[in-house]
Amino acid sequence: MRTTMRAEIICIGTELLLGHVVNTNAAFLGRELALLGYDLHHTSVVGDNAARLAEVLQTALTRSSLVITTGGLGPTLDDLTKKTVADVLGRPMVHDAATTQSIRDFFGSRPYGANQETQAWFPEGATVLVNHHGTAPGCAVTADNGALLLLFPGPPGEMQPMFQDMALPILEKQVGASIVSFMVRTFGQGEGDAALKLGSLCENANPSTATYLGAHHEVFARVTAKAATRNEARELALPTVEEAKKRLGDVVYGVNVDSLEQVVVGLLRERGEEVATAESCTGGMLAMRITDIPGSSAVFRTGLVTYANETKTRLLGVPEDMLAAHGAVSPEVARCMAEGVRRSASSTYGIGITGIAGPDGGTEEKPVGLVYLALATPEGTFVCRMAPAGIYRGRNYVRERSVGLALDMLRRYLEHKPVPETFTC
Amino acid sequence: MRTTMRAEIICIGTELLLGHVVNTNAAFLGRELALLGYDLHHTSVVGDNAARLAEVLQTALTRSSLVITTGGLGPTLDDLTKKTVADVLGRPMVHDAATTQSIRDFFGSRPYGANQETQAWFPEGATVLVNHHGTAPGCAVTADNGALLLLFPGPPGEMQPMFQDMALPILEKQVGASIVSFMVRTFGQGEGDAALKLGSLCENANPSTATYLGAHHEVFARVTAKAATRNEARELALPTVEEAKKRLGDVVYGVNVDSLEQVVVGLLRERGEEVATAESCTGGMLAMRITDIPGSSAVFRTGLVTYANETKTRLLGVPEDMLAAHGAVSPEVARCMAEGVRRSASSTYGIGITGIAGPDGGTEEKPVGLVYLALATPEGTFVCRMAPAGIYRGRNYVRERSVGLALDMLRRYLEHKPVPETFTC
Repeated sequence: MRTTMRAEIICIGTELLLGHVVNTNAAFLGRELALLGYDLHHTSVVGDNAARLAEVLQTALTRSSLVITTGGLGPTLDDLTKKTVADVLGRPMVHDAATTQSIRDFFGSRPYGANQETQAWFPEGATVLVNHHGTAPGCAVTADNGALLLLFPGPPGEMQPMFQDMALPILEKQVGASIVSFMVRTFGQGEGDAALKLGSLCENANPSTATYLGAHHEVFARVTAKAATRNEARELALPTVEEAKKRLGDVVYGVNVDSLEQVVVGLLRERGEEVATAESCTGGMLAMRITDIPGSSAVFRTGLVTYANETKTRLLGVPEDMLAAHGAVSPEVARCMAEGVRRSASSTYGIGITGIAGPDGGTEEKPVGLVYLALATPEGTFVCRMAPAGIYRGRNYVRERSVGLALDMLRRYLEHKPVPETFTC
Repeated sequence: MRTTMRAEIICIGTELLLGHVVNTNAAFLGRELALLGYDLHHTSVVGDNAARLAEVLQTALTRSSLVITTGGLGPTLDDLTKKTVADVLGRPMVHDAATTQSIRDFFGSRPYGANQETQAWFPEGATVLVNHHGTAPGCAVTADNGALLLLFPGPPGEMQPMFQDMALPILEKQVGASIVSFMVRTFGQGEGDAALKLGSLCENANPSTATYLGAHHEVFARVTAKAATRNEARELALPTVEEAKKRLGDVVYGVNVDSLEQVVVGLLRERGEEVATAESCTGGMLAMRITDIPGSSAVFRTGLVTYANETKTRLLGVPEDMLAAHGAVSPEVARCMAEGVRRSASSTYGIGITGIAGPDGGTEEKPVGLVYLALATPEGTFVCRMAPAGIYRGRNYVRERSVGLALDMLRRYLEHKPVPETFTC
């Protein structure tokens, strides 16, 4: 029943089973294995129990060519993965001197328990996978029937870089190919629209193209190519990446970048320009996202959260009679906020956001979810009206979409692309 | 091998297996089943494949008294859970007229596909579990061997409230008891310290007490009691909740509340008081968390993000020579920021935060992670020095801990508890 390219994941830990920890490793491994071309049919979670782990391991080894475990590699009594694997494989545990040395180096002159040194024992025949982000090393070991086992520690911050650095070369060897991926990131369209625009690209097998829902309700297109070497895979993928960018159009804000705010901060830095913010309903979230980027102090000096009308007047010069005539949630006030903060902070650009995040405060004329955004530039001010398409999706959704749209308006302006006047969220 | 209180979770969906979605349902169910007293030994994830699902279901029904599935209940071809369960149980599918009616009511005059009505078919003998948050209903069905199956839709926003509203009463009946939990939330101590303080409480079985790591690096103690009725369970739990609060001390900010910011906004509202914020390294995150709370406009009018020294001087009146003498990251500047924003916003309280979020900008004297926080009140100003205990845990960690500490300083002041002068994070 064993198929050459069938993989299986076993996550070990009572804390996973009882839900004290959400299993992000399984999701990570699922994505990585799919990219490599493995068929993944089963993911199991078992507690810290040797008998049940042995049972699950035995079943896995009879039906899969690759079995990946996470968890149970630490120095405590609960950590039984390596010993159980050795028992199932019918191998003794052997000592690895290099690992003992690296544990000693890690602790230096600090005292540590003898149990730490259990981490230097592995099933016979195993290759040690070094852990640069913690103390528990993993290992790779091939069963007598040819199935490959990879053992990783449980913390995602250790497991995931170890997979990339240590396991990927081993798996690429098993698969006989290198895999390269590009993430084309967009703001301001739904996943269905993105798939429609990508069209035939999504039907190709190599390079393959698929849509993903990312953080902050953004949609990404991932282009993946497989070839004999990384360079060949990259060369194979690039024309499709370019075609995907062309088909998706202005909504693309970057490829293999970390975030929209990273792109905006980078564009401003290149130009030696600055932005200042004046926020009402988003309450500081825009300033927070800009200042998430290390080095943002070069492009951002001032953010104002003018939550009350009085503060809009005092700090931004929004006239009281404008607030009375149009209300705080109006294109006039958004414009006045953006221009006011640009002027008072002596920044190149100013952004103003005013809206109704809800759940209360909506009227028939100005429903919950209505937000006006303004971008003041040396060439004039752009105002955009953001309104909900259908149901109200909560306070946080309205705030997140507003902040994304504000960043995207500035990104579009800096890239000489049209800044929208309306936006449906 | 079937034990009376053994439970098993089967999550169905290729999107889970391939990691496009993280399995938060399994974590949620793991916690709920543990509270009810079930032994959970296995959680499995299978793709949208009838043969593999049938295999997993058959194994589960032989060893568990409760089998919960999530996913595969929608109107598309992939959604095969109910049919597969019926086949495994040897039952026909039967039609439920009430469900058809509620689907018709949901769509009203809008057109919908005939496939929607497949949602009204269930394995014979099933009790329908109504879905108030989506269209796909779930069901409860008892196998011939007495095992109970609960079928839920996959989206956590539908599954989790359905579990609470529909399944809990059924399970409490199977268990023969009602369960009530209280979450005692703390800020400013580690999980190990909390467990040490709770001591013997953590050894009791009913009410049971356990520590949890919550959002924003907070530690919670969950007290759970089991009794014949909800009222009896509540009465049984309350003395332990009080004892837990007493043992944990001033770090407790609330029981069964949503967040620290919710408590602070509530305390300010009760007193008709206001807070204004001046942030440097946290870049608006404090204002954002306060304004996350609906109705926060009653207690918050003004937030300033004074990221540059020039802005600290212009908006807060921080003297240039103070910045030159002590540096922006100093107790003097934090105090001046808090007092400056309190004065200019005419607020009851002012908070100032200045620090080094990193990864760059640290020196030997002022390392990355060093933050000064100040709380200006009508009775004077409190200043707290926050410093890292060991390794630098990233920019976001420093920012989150600073914002939590700022909120907790105000919470402590409003509750007449000592405001700390130093804080190790």
